[in-house]
Amino acid sequence: MKIALLGHGNVGRGVSYIIDNGKTSFIKHLEIKKILVKDESEATDERMVFNIDDALDDDIDIVVECLGGLDFPFVCISKALNMKKHVVTSNKKVMATYYDELVNLAKKNGVNIIFEGSVGGGIPVMSNIRHTKRVDEISAFSGIFNGTTNFILDKMTKEGKCFNDVLTKAQKLGYAESDPGDDIDGHDVRYKCCLTGNMVWDTSLNLDDITTFGVRTVNQKDIDFGQKHQSTLKLIGRGIKTDENVQVFVLPEYITNNDTLAHIPSNLNCIVFKSENLNVTSYIGQGAGTFPTAHAVVQDIVSLLNNEDLTIENNNKIEINNKNYKSKFYVRTENLEFFKNYIYKKIDSDVIITEPIDLFKLKDLMEKTEDKKMFVAGVSL
Amino acid sequence: MKIALLGHGNVGRGVSYIIDNGKTSFIKHLEIKKILVKDESEATDERMVFNIDDALDDDIDIVVECLGGLDFPFVCISKALNMKKHVVTSNKKVMATYYDELVNLAKKNGVNIIFEGSVGGGIPVMSNIRHTKRVDEISAFSGIFNGTTNFILDKMTKEGKCFNDVLTKAQKLGYAESDPGDDIDGHDVRYKCCLTGNMVWDTSLNLDDITTFGVRTVNQKDIDFGQKHQSTLKLIGRGIKTDENVQVFVLPEYITNNDTLAHIPSNLNCIVFKSENLNVTSYIGQGAGTFPTAHAVVQDIVSLLNNEDLTIENNNKIEINNKNYKSKFYVRTENLEFFKNYIYKKIDSDVIITEPIDLFKLKDLMEKTEDKKMFVAGVSL
Repeated sequence: MKIALLGHGNVGRGVSYIIDNGKTSFIKHLEIKKILVKDESEATDERMVFNIDDALDDDIDIVVECLGGLDFPFVCISKALNMKKHVVTSNKKVMATYYDELVNLAKKNGVNIIFEGSVGGGIPVMSNIRHTKRVDEISAFSGIFNGTTNFILDKMTKEGKCFNDVLTKAQKLGYAESDPGDDIDGHDVRYKCCLTGNMVWDTSLNLDDITTFGVRTVNQKDIDFGQKHQSTLKLIGRGIKTDENVQVFVLPEYITNNDTLAHIPSNLNCIVFKSENLNVTSYIGQGAGTFPTAHAVVQDIVSLLNNEDLTIENNNKIEINNKNYKSKFYVRTENLEFFKNYIYKKIDSDVIITEPIDLFKLKDLMEKTEDKKMFVAGVSL
Repeated sequence: MKIALLGHGNVGRGVSYIIDNGKTSFIKHLEIKKILVKDESEATDERMVFNIDDALDDDIDIVVECLGGLDFPFVCISKALNMKKHVVTSNKKVMATYYDELVNLAKKNGVNIIFEGSVGGGIPVMSNIRHTKRVDEISAFSGIFNGTTNFILDKMTKEGKCFNDVLTKAQKLGYAESDPGDDIDGHDVRYKCCLTGNMVWDTSLNLDDITTFGVRTVNQKDIDFGQKHQSTLKLIGRGIKTDENVQVFVLPEYITNNDTLAHIPSNLNCIVFKSENLNVTSYIGQGAGTFPTAHAVVQDIVSLLNNEDLTIENNNKIEINNKNYKSKFYVRTENLEFFKNYIYKKIDSDVIITEPIDLFKLKDLMEKTEDKKMFVAGVSL
C-alpha cells in the first residue's frame, strides 16, 4: 500500500518512523511515498512536498492526515476522498466538526475514512467498539479522555500543587499545548465524546449539543473536598443511552474511590463501556504522545491493508437531550445567592451541594452569577 | 455457520442464549444445530444429544467446547479437528495442557482453534494481543487473571474479613468453585499466563515451568502489612521477555497504590501489556460469568464467520527461565530460621522481608520450613 503522509509533526514523525522501520510483516507491506510539510525549511527527506496536490499522486492508496488544525485538513481530506483514496486521520477536531460531510463523502467515493488515533491515543478504542458491537449492545460510555487535565488534577490531588504551576509543568513536559484552552475548557473531551458516541450508536451527534464544563477554575479547595469525601476529582466525558435519546456531556466529577476511574494516574486515559453481555469493560493507556498515537494510525492503515469492513454507519437518528440528566452538583462561587432555591447542603460560605438539577439549569444559574472564578462538578453525596 | 455446542452449563447456556436470540447482523448468520449434554435428565431442547459422535454431524462448521474438565474435552476437540471442523473453546485447562497437540492438529487439518473466553472472560485479551502484534512488540504482560481470589483479597482488605468467611461468600455468589483449589493455589492463573504468553510470543510455553504461588494461607496480618505500606495485596500473573528467554510466574504481590492494579475491585480482572509503541495498556472487565464468557466465545465464532486470519504460531522456541527473576519477598512463617541468611528487614517475630532472591531459592527455602501455614508475597519496599 502506498501512503501519502500529510504533516510531519509529533504524530506524523511517529508514523513515518514506524512504517520506515517495518518491524512486522504487516508494516513491511506499507510504503510512504510522499510527505507533505509546510516548506523547504521542514524538508529533511526526498519524499517531502509542499503542496497538497503534489502529495496526492495517482498511485497513492491511503492518505494519512496528521496536520492538526481544522480548515486546511478538511480541504486535504476532502480532496483525497474525492480522488478515491482511503483516509486515516488522528484529527478529532476535523472529524467531530465535519463528521457527516466526511463520512458521506467517503461512502460516495467507495472508500473509507477511519480515525483510531483521534480518541484515546494508543488505546484501541474504535477497534474495540467495532468488535464489541458485533455481538453486544453498548448502552453507555464514560471516561478520562484528556491526559493533560488528568495530569493536572492528579498532581493537584497527590502533591497539593496549584493549577497554574502544574499547567506550566505539563506544558514543559509536552503534555499541554501552549494554548491549553481546548484541554482545560473541556473541548478536546467534547470532540472525543462526539466521535465515541457516533461509533457506539451508528449516528452523527450534534457537537454543539454536548454540554461542556471544564476545569480552568479548579483550586485546591475543590480538590480537598473530594479527598475529604473518599472521592477524586476527574474530568469525565459521558454518553448514556436512554429509551428515546442520548445524554452526552463533559463534566468534572467527584468519582468515588471504589471506582477504578478515581485511580487513573498521571496523563493516562481510561475509557469505559457498559454493554449488555459484558457489563463494564475499561481500557487504560497513553491518551496522546508520538508513538501511542502513531501506533493507532498505523493500526488503521493495517486494517485497510487487510481489507476489513470499516464502513461507518451514521444514519441512526439520535438526538442529544441533556435536559433529562439530573445530578447533584458541587458549586463554589462568591455569588451563591443565585443558587438559594437549589441547596441540598451548605458546605462553606462559598460552597454548596445542589439538589438534583439538570445540566441546562446548572448552566443557566452559572451564567447568572457572572462569576468567572466559580467551579462546578458532579457529585453523588 | 452451523454450530455444535458441547456442554450446556454456565457458559454453554450463555452461548445458546446469545446465538438463539440473534440480536446483531453477525449473530443472525449463526445457528446452533446440536447441543451435547450428559443425558436425558439435562435435555431441554430437541437439539440435544448425549454422545459426541451424534453432535459432530457432517454439516457442522464449528464445534464450541464449553464442557469444562480435561480428558473428555480433549477427546472431543481432537475428534472435531480431525473432522476438519473449527473449534472454539473457553477451556483454559485443556488448551494450556495440550497446546501444541491441539494447535498442530488444527493446522494439519486446515482449520482453526481459538480460545478468547479462556483468559479474562469478557475482556478481549486474545483479540487485542493479535491486534497489537500487527504493529508492535509486546515485551511483558501482568495482571489480575482470577476473579475469585481478587474478590477474596479485596473483601479482606476493605472489610477486614477472614479468608474462609470470604471464600464461603464467594462460593455462595457463584464466584468460587466448591473445590476452590485451582483458584486459591494459583493454577487457574498459571493456565491463563501460559496461554497469554503463548499468544504474545508465538510460542508454546511449558506449563510446568511456570512457578506458581497461591493465596490459600493469606491472613489479615499479611493484608494489613500492605495497607501499612501504601500497597495492596493482589494475586498477579506475570510474563517478562528478557534478551534470551522469558520469565513467567504466578505470585501474590504487594502492588503500590500508585498503580491502577492495586485498585481493581471485587471479582474483576485486569490484564496489562507493555509494548514498545504503546508503553502500558490495560484491559479491565468481568473475568468470568455466564454472559461475559459466552460473549467472548461468540466473538470467536464471528471471527471465524468473517474468515479472519486466526492461525496460531507456536514455533518460536522460548524457554521459561525464572532463575533470573529476583525480588524481595515478604515471608511469614513460624520457622524463620531457614531464612536467616537472607534477611533484608525484620518486621515481626514471624515476618521478614528477604534480600533479593530468585523464585527457585524461595521455593527451596519454603519447602525446608515444612510450614503449611506460611505465606509469601513479592514486595518492592
